[in-house]
Amino acid sequence: MENNKCDVILAHGVVATMDDANRLVADGAVALRAGKIVAVGPAAEVLREFTATEVIDCTDCAIMPGLVNCHTHVPMTLLRGLADDLRLDVWLYGYMLPVEKKFVSPAFVKLGAQLAAAEMIRSGVTCVNDMYYFEDTIAQTLADAGMRALCSQTIMQFPTPDAASADESLEACEAFVTKWKDHELIVPVVAPHAPYTCSGQLMRACAEIAIKHDVPLHIHISETEQEVIDCKRINNMPSVNWIHKWGVLEAKVIAAHCVWIDRDEMRMLKKHGATISHNPAANLKLASGIAALTDMLDEGVTVGIGTDGPASNNDLDHFEEMRLAALLAKGSTRNPVAVPARQAMRMATIEGARALHIGDKTGSLEPGKAGDVIVVNLDTLHNTPAYWKLARDPEALYTQIVYSGKAGDVRDVFIQGRPVMRARALLTLDETGIRAQANETARQIDQFLVEREGDVLRKLAAIGGVTQSESFEVQVKARLSDATAIIASVQNQTNGLKVLRHVHYRQYDTYFYFDNDPSRLRYREDERLDENGGVLGSRSRLTLVGATGEREYDHSVLLSRVRFFSSADRSLRFYREYFKPTREVSIEKDRLRWEVAFEDQEIFINIDRLVEPSATGNDMFLEIKTRTWSLKDAQRKAATIGDLLMRFGITDAQLLRQEYVEIAT
Amino acid sequence: MENNKCDVILAHGVVATMDDANRLVADGAVALRAGKIVAVGPAAEVLREFTATEVIDCTDCAIMPGLVNCHTHVPMTLLRGLADDLRLDVWLYGYMLPVEKKFVSPAFVKLGAQLAAAEMIRSGVTCVNDMYYFEDTIAQTLADAGMRALCSQTIMQFPTPDAASADESLEACEAFVTKWKDHELIVPVVAPHAPYTCSGQLMRACAEIAIKHDVPLHIHISETEQEVIDCKRINNMPSVNWIHKWGVLEAKVIAAHCVWIDRDEMRMLKKHGATISHNPAANLKLASGIAALTDMLDEGVTVGIGTDGPASNNDLDHFEEMRLAALLAKGSTRNPVAVPARQAMRMATIEGARALHIGDKTGSLEPGKAGDVIVVNLDTLHNTPAYWKLARDPEALYTQIVYSGKAGDVRDVFIQGRPVMRARALLTLDETGIRAQANETARQIDQFLVEREGDVLRKLAAIGGVTQSESFEVQVKARLSDATAIIASVQNQTNGLKVLRHVHYRQYDTYFYFDNDPSRLRYREDERLDENGGVLGSRSRLTLVGATGEREYDHSVLLSRVRFFSSADRSLRFYREYFKPTREVSIEKDRLRWEVAFEDQEIFINIDRLVEPSATGNDMFLEIKTRTWSLKDAQRKAATIGDLLMRFGITDAQLLRQEYVEIAT
Repeated sequence: MENNKCDVILAHGVVATMDDANRLVADGAVALRAGKIVAVGPAAEVLREFTATEVIDCTDCAIMPGLVNCHTHVPMTLLRGLADDLRLDVWLYGYMLPVEKKFVSPAFVKLGAQLAAAEMIRSGVTCVNDMYYFEDTIAQTLADAGMRALCSQTIMQFPTPDAASADESLEACEAFVTKWKDHELIVPVVAPHAPYTCSGQLMRACAEIAIKHDVPLHIHISETEQEVIDCKRINNMPSVNWIHKWGVLEAKVIAAHCVWIDRDEMRMLKKHGATISHNPAANLKLASGIAALTDMLDEGVTVGIGTDGPASNNDLDHFEEMRLAALLAKGSTRNPVAVPARQAMRMATIEGARALHIGDKTGSLEPGKAGDVIVVNLDTLHNTPAYWKLARDPEALYTQIVYSGKAGDVRDVFIQGRPVMRARALLTLDETGIRAQANETARQIDQFLVEREGDVLRKLAAIGGVTQSESFEVQVKARLSDATAIIASVQNQTNGLKVLRHVHYRQYDTYFYFDNDPSRLRYREDERLDENGGVLGSRSRLTLVGATGEREYDHSVLLSRVRFFSSADRSLRFYREYFKPTREVSIEKDRLRWEVAFEDQEIFINIDRLVEPSATGNDMFLEIKTRTWSLKDAQRKAATIGDLLMRFGITDAQLLRQEYVEIAT
Repeated sequence: MENNKCDVILAHGVVATMDDANRLVADGAVALRAGKIVAVGPAAEVLREFTATEVIDCTDCAIMPGLVNCHTHVPMTLLRGLADDLRLDVWLYGYMLPVEKKFVSPAFVKLGAQLAAAEMIRSGVTCVNDMYYFEDTIAQTLADAGMRALCSQTIMQFPTPDAASADESLEACEAFVTKWKDHELIVPVVAPHAPYTCSGQLMRACAEIAIKHDVPLHIHISETEQEVIDCKRINNMPSVNWIHKWGVLEAKVIAAHCVWIDRDEMRMLKKHGATISHNPAANLKLASGIAALTDMLDEGVTVGIGTDGPASNNDLDHFEEMRLAALLAKGSTRNPVAVPARQAMRMATIEGARALHIGDKTGSLEPGKAGDVIVVNLDTLHNTPAYWKLARDPEALYTQIVYSGKAGDVRDVFIQGRPVMRARALLTLDETGIRAQANETARQIDQFLVEREGDVLRKLAAIGGVTQSESFEVQVKARLSDATAIIASVQNQTNGLKVLRHVHYRQYDTYFYFDNDPSRLRYREDERLDENGGVLGSRSRLTLVGATGEREYDHSVLLSRVRFFSSADRSLRFYREYFKPTREVSIEKDRLRWEVAFEDQEIFINIDRLVEPSATGNDMFLEIKTRTWSLKDAQRKAATIGDLLMRFGITDAQLLRQEYVEIAT
């Protein structure tokens, strides 16, 4: 046999090839030359056939393909631990989007990608599918770190941190794809974000770029149940059918999540060669659900494993992700033989590579494939004893790695034949410098949020448009045991009243109070009712009420109030979790409201009944209000109100100075 | 302020006290003296107040209570990786029980406990609740390793590795409790294994010992759904009600698993101060299900976290277990704010200690409590950036530890004020020696299993009683297109036939074939049918058929067969997963069987029809068989059979030499 030269031989470990025969080689070796694997076999044979510049002893280690992380957002390492245990919308709209809007830049994504690359290499990941903004910078950063990566440039129909419009985004994406498509480590990918953030036309335009340049297309599909409910309501079909209708499946699709797809959708993905990234930890943490992994596998869909972004995981530990995929499949299907260790390890390696449409290049240890190899130390306490070394069941190696293995067991990492970690020391990244910079960025983000959240008003402003208004009102409130006479007077327009407008409301108010802020935030839902109590329509508003200036008159008060209004387009639950009030009071009231003319003034008359809390029993409340604009006008209006009170027979004893929220508590 | 002496001050870390106010102290310190905590507070204050023999710098580390593992079987570290991805019964009856029966001894549990203690200390566990056999040895081993432990002595109504009978077991248990009950590190515990392995009386006897000596009682409750179905069927009530009926809840109960208990049972546990060990990884891996953790917490039950035995986990990593408890609660309830990080960390520390009924002694960092403290390095790549250090949200410390923390981040461990690990070096255990011994034990176990599984017969013998029988039969088989005439002849007793007995069977046969073994294993279910096809009864048998000796006669053959019979008290599925056949063939046939007298011989006549596979269509098969005991007798019987064939009008062309399993394939 001729003696060939090669660069490196990893020798004397157990080789888990992850080829289609699942060949294991005890005391095996892998030879690398010019970026590729040139031999895999028994150490004695490989060492006889090849002479290497360096032979690395791997006794008591597994020599295996590098792990493949099929879905993540690498720059989000910088947001890890920033905001956890929140509902998806609060997390996204309250924290991630505002912070991304403020901070995401080429410098930010570069630093985040470096931090992620360091963490991934240390945990044995040699190939990652990233999806974010400024992917050109990320591609350069990961290539510089020596990592293999799919870089999925995000496209949405809204402005993004790296594009003012979808058109601009598409154009930049195609330039990005053209620039990187022949790189040895990087595969550029077109990534329409999701069916709910991209129109059908935009998804089609993305698919056309992907097809034209023969690169994959990456997209979030059916991560949450709500998304699927909405898709069915709006498009009359589930998500996979919807993207198929727009021709997206003609591209080489990688669908992330797929927590809520059905069997027909799985078959449709399979038929078109589309693949899935299963992301169990993030799906649990954000409570999206548990994807039907075993059904996907039964249908023959190619499935890889992804960590999703480190802001929702909270790390890039692919050993844990592989283990969770195996455990969760068993527990959720009540089948202990579902997704056995070997299958989980295949999903984290060769099937992952196939899911990224690069299974011909990486994912298994076979001559001709890229030299993406990791050496995993099995000589540890948590891997003791070593049944896999003994006679009965060499396949116990898989259960050892999947059920007891840890990211920290990874000793050496080679990508494209080049060492990127040796004996746990990173060779392509300055770990100390990156960590210092990451902590500095975190400090800036923290400061931004502290300022933004410094008071309730700034927190309110951070999530949407706020309108300020200062109002001056003269008003009075009285408690009534019976409102019949007053209602009759208004309805019959006696006592000199002329009705301009009448509305019947049911009002649901929730007040948030804060220990560290004097403001009070009111969330109000108004239901406008018809004559039979049917709901004609409703609207929601947030009102931030600051301190109130008062001046007293006979029978009434002049109130000057600064208020901030914001339309409330999210749920009460969202605001509760976002503002985290110290105390909360809810009031439900029935309000008959009349706008009337009286003594040439425009006056509002409310007849209110508190439904909840019911402490005030059947008592009714009369409110008379009128807007004012000067002290003199206020004085005149106070007199008018006094006059009206007299006509209604209200005594001073009935007058109240409290607001409902105070009466209620 | 006076200056006190103490042994050790852990200083300048962030102190997560896990006290009931969840106090966090940035730049904090903990002082230890004589086994106890004497001060917790800002480092400057503690260092001013106390002088220590040693001050340990904990900058960039968390100083927190040691983790509490509420349910495991520590000696089973030695069985880790031995048999995975199997159904519970195959795993238990095929591997765990036979290996335990053969190997479990005081020496075995000592070694396993040492291996486990090393792994637990390295992952920050300072207190464990073990449940196994020979707990006296385990108590001594864990105490020698410096660990705090509840040692739960298993009691069953069957013989166990450490007791020939339940009475002996009870007696030994009380002696064990008496011996250890005042130890500073060890709490002896009475552990009736489970309601399905202990009679009511036996559980009551256990409770009486626990109550008399005021020690806890540990028991497995409702781990699997089947267990609950059985309990309801047999006892007319669910498991918790059942143990309550027997007075078990009068003791300080720790119930492991509780995957299948209902709200009423939770309330009953709560009412009696009984606690739960939630073991998410093992419940997933063995596919028992997902326990309703949030319901338990809603009902106010004290819940701790357990890893369960390392043979079903497969490690003792309590960081992963804590993380999984937090993630799984969210995903399974679809509520992302369920079990937030702080709550998960409380369950792994103070609530865990309370679950073990020693919350007054350990689990939080408060003066007067035991010095069970760990120092966790937060200055790692996977914990970067460090938002918890910044102004906005110091509670991000909890999410950092729970969602990104790793067992390998634990730097120092103190138990009862004594260091057991410093800078990741174990101080009380010889890691190298323990690992070598564990590998030697594994080698012996592997050899035992190799021998046992060397051929199918030994594997069969390993799981139950096997009867050997050698039989000699003269037989013939013929294919019929119509069996009407023959059936009529037998039924009407013409042709000189006298019917002694008649049975109608439906037979379901599954044959297992093996590449490396010439034997064929048949699993047969016989259904005996009445005149209308109704099932009168059924039975299952396993038959191992070896090579068959043959001698040919006119029209028939003499067969000599060695067979091994075993009653099949487990399911076909069990045998499939246990024997792992290379190939499998299933046959279903309808059999009319007559025992007849003919020419003074006792003969069996079968009229068979193959239902599945249906390749033979409507053809019927005639089998005539008779037992023989000598060559001369065989010759005579062959002639008798020839005579009967002639009377039935069977030609030689209709005769078959194949067995049904051959005809079918």
